[in-house]
Amino acid sequence: MKFTYHNPTRLIFGAGTLAQLGTEARAYGKKALLVTGGGSIKRNGTFQRAVASLEQAGVSWAECSGVEPNPRLSTVKRGAGIAKEEGCDIVVALGGGSTMDAAKVMAAAVFYEGDPWDMMVHRGENRRKPERALPIVTIPTLAATGSEMNGGAVITDEATTVKSFVVAECLYPKVSVVDPELAASVPADQTAYGVCDLITHVTESYFNGVDGTPLQDRIAEGIIITAMEWGPKAVVNGHDVEARAQVQWASTVALMGVAQVGSNAAFPVHIIEHSLSAHHDIAHGAGLSIVSPAWMRFAARSRPERFAQFAQRIFGIPFQKDNAAEAAAEGIGRFEAFLRTIGCPTRLSEVGIGEELLERYAKDSLLIASDAEGRLPGRPPMSASDIVETLRSVL
Amino acid sequence: MKFTYHNPTRLIFGAGTLAQLGTEARAYGKKALLVTGGGSIKRNGTFQRAVASLEQAGVSWAECSGVEPNPRLSTVKRGAGIAKEEGCDIVVALGGGSTMDAAKVMAAAVFYEGDPWDMMVHRGENRRKPERALPIVTIPTLAATGSEMNGGAVITDEATTVKSFVVAECLYPKVSVVDPELAASVPADQTAYGVCDLITHVTESYFNGVDGTPLQDRIAEGIIITAMEWGPKAVVNGHDVEARAQVQWASTVALMGVAQVGSNAAFPVHIIEHSLSAHHDIAHGAGLSIVSPAWMRFAARSRPERFAQFAQRIFGIPFQKDNAAEAAAEGIGRFEAFLRTIGCPTRLSEVGIGEELLERYAKDSLLIASDAEGRLPGRPPMSASDIVETLRSVL
Repeated sequence: MKFTYHNPTRLIFGAGTLAQLGTEARAYGKKALLVTGGGSIKRNGTFQRAVASLEQAGVSWAECSGVEPNPRLSTVKRGAGIAKEEGCDIVVALGGGSTMDAAKVMAAAVFYEGDPWDMMVHRGENRRKPERALPIVTIPTLAATGSEMNGGAVITDEATTVKSFVVAECLYPKVSVVDPELAASVPADQTAYGVCDLITHVTESYFNGVDGTPLQDRIAEGIIITAMEWGPKAVVNGHDVEARAQVQWASTVALMGVAQVGSNAAFPVHIIEHSLSAHHDIAHGAGLSIVSPAWMRFAARSRPERFAQFAQRIFGIPFQKDNAAEAAAEGIGRFEAFLRTIGCPTRLSEVGIGEELLERYAKDSLLIASDAEGRLPGRPPMSASDIVETLRSVL
Repeated sequence: MKFTYHNPTRLIFGAGTLAQLGTEARAYGKKALLVTGGGSIKRNGTFQRAVASLEQAGVSWAECSGVEPNPRLSTVKRGAGIAKEEGCDIVVALGGGSTMDAAKVMAAAVFYEGDPWDMMVHRGENRRKPERALPIVTIPTLAATGSEMNGGAVITDEATTVKSFVVAECLYPKVSVVDPELAASVPADQTAYGVCDLITHVTESYFNGVDGTPLQDRIAEGIIITAMEWGPKAVVNGHDVEARAQVQWASTVALMGVAQVGSNAAFPVHIIEHSLSAHHDIAHGAGLSIVSPAWMRFAARSRPERFAQFAQRIFGIPFQKDNAAEAAAEGIGRFEAFLRTIGCPTRLSEVGIGEELLERYAKDSLLIASDAEGRLPGRPPMSASDIVETLRSVL
């Protein structure tokens, strides 16, 4: 186990903390590029409260609104352009994962020479990592991506329909104001997709990481159990602030690094899902909910014990060495059933995806990352036909 | 659940990382106050390797050696004096918790006006928190305190035999180089005390924190289970680098904050133990091993369900509401037995402490923290006679 861990983000967590936004932002800048998504935050008053807090602290702002789900490269360029024209010295993201991710890349694009797409990982490498960004402040309005406490972002190049990611030190938010009340009006389906997203962040490292990270395993299991306990409550009653808080905190911890450090894990489920949502405007969490159990069944064939451990520790399914495959299958089935229970899709047909582009998804996935044998990294690595067959199993 | 979480320390973890010390330190200073404890690091070569790494990177150094277990205020003053005389611009701590804690307070004392003892908590408050410190780099040689990734330190005023603590933003190490190989020659007893110390860091918040922190509970349980699985292996074979690494990482996570945030927990077991080790030069972890199960039995009387949950999740002891007290008692018994198994004392007589000063320990504890009714904060709060009786139960 060998790693470097450094997460410099200051997290301000709790119901009502949105009111602190202005004071926190003022420590880093005078004029904010305020990055937002759809209109819901204006309808429910979150936007107005955020702006009031900024203005009260003496922070002026210019808005980059309309960041779409699966945010596009052109949106990033538009935002960076506004920041430059308006002389913004800080970027404030108010929204879900798409808004936060787009805002992060905008903050770096302001200083980046050339096309911001060059920051993104291609064949397993950041070609030219960003080294500098405007100070970033994030205010998540949905528990899902954990983008509020890490240095990662996912962007789609709409011209090539390739979705890729960047991870860089300069993309960590300086401050994240995490107010679970802001998610109160998030619809049940988006809430459920967020729960699936956060769980998948830790199942990726849990199943694809190196052996010998027992504490990270326990932390991952704790996150999954907490999300499965509180997620359904937030889905059923969005105004249950206690449930919103527990799910929000679980989503932050899921990708702040402590569950992943030293695991050196590939994220094959994410990469495959990105290849779907780059072509079809489906919610990332909904795509994960389809791909994840299918991938688990594929991977469990070569490592049933690992999935049996998951089955045992998450669902209390007993296992001995001679029935690991059965325990694994039962655990995966229970997990898939949980996803269905909270309203997540588990078949491609449910989100309108057919078999037409299966080969293309596989090709796009391998464009993001592939090993020396041309396979998608993971445990085990996947050939193009493995990806196609895995997706075909959940048509 | 409302909290701020910010842990800016960069953690460099893994066997062999000591070689990176010089490069890391050089980013923060040119001349180090090198703070060390006893002679073991010179006998086993760790000191020489650390110095070689510093010198190779162009960092000169002045040593403050001989930091004792339960480090004293006079030692802090001596170290701060050396740093000033020698013009040190960085503090490097190479040793266990005592060395790291003393080094942290030295780093702040360099800039502190007046007596460094005024930084320490007295009746529940830092009277005058330090606001500035020389950059701190820590290299732990023992898994125990977690001091390498937090902003806390514990010091004893030998004149008054009062042991207290300080927590401040400026005391977070800039970098911690955590090389589990360095612990290879730590004796079995000290290794065991470290395991007890790290477990107690999370049991304090687990049992004394507010309700409604389910993920922190799961993380705490994961740390305890990992420490109980790998700790005995490190005790039996100190050269088992895998076991050393797992215990070291567990001790870091135990007090880096993720298991405690939002719990708003008092640390009564620590405060009582400090009152013992201020008067008797016993290892902190050994003292905790005596106080902790005794305190658990005291606290379980008023909250058996919480201790039954601990029994169930750590030891697999089943419980229903009507047998919570029995399950709690069985869990505490199993925990105490574990401590004995790895060689920790569980009675005061084993470390040469009698009943002479019981009232004094209670009085000293209440001097560090007491509520409006003059009781030691915790769940439940303890009166002086509660403390005396709890200690008397493990004479």
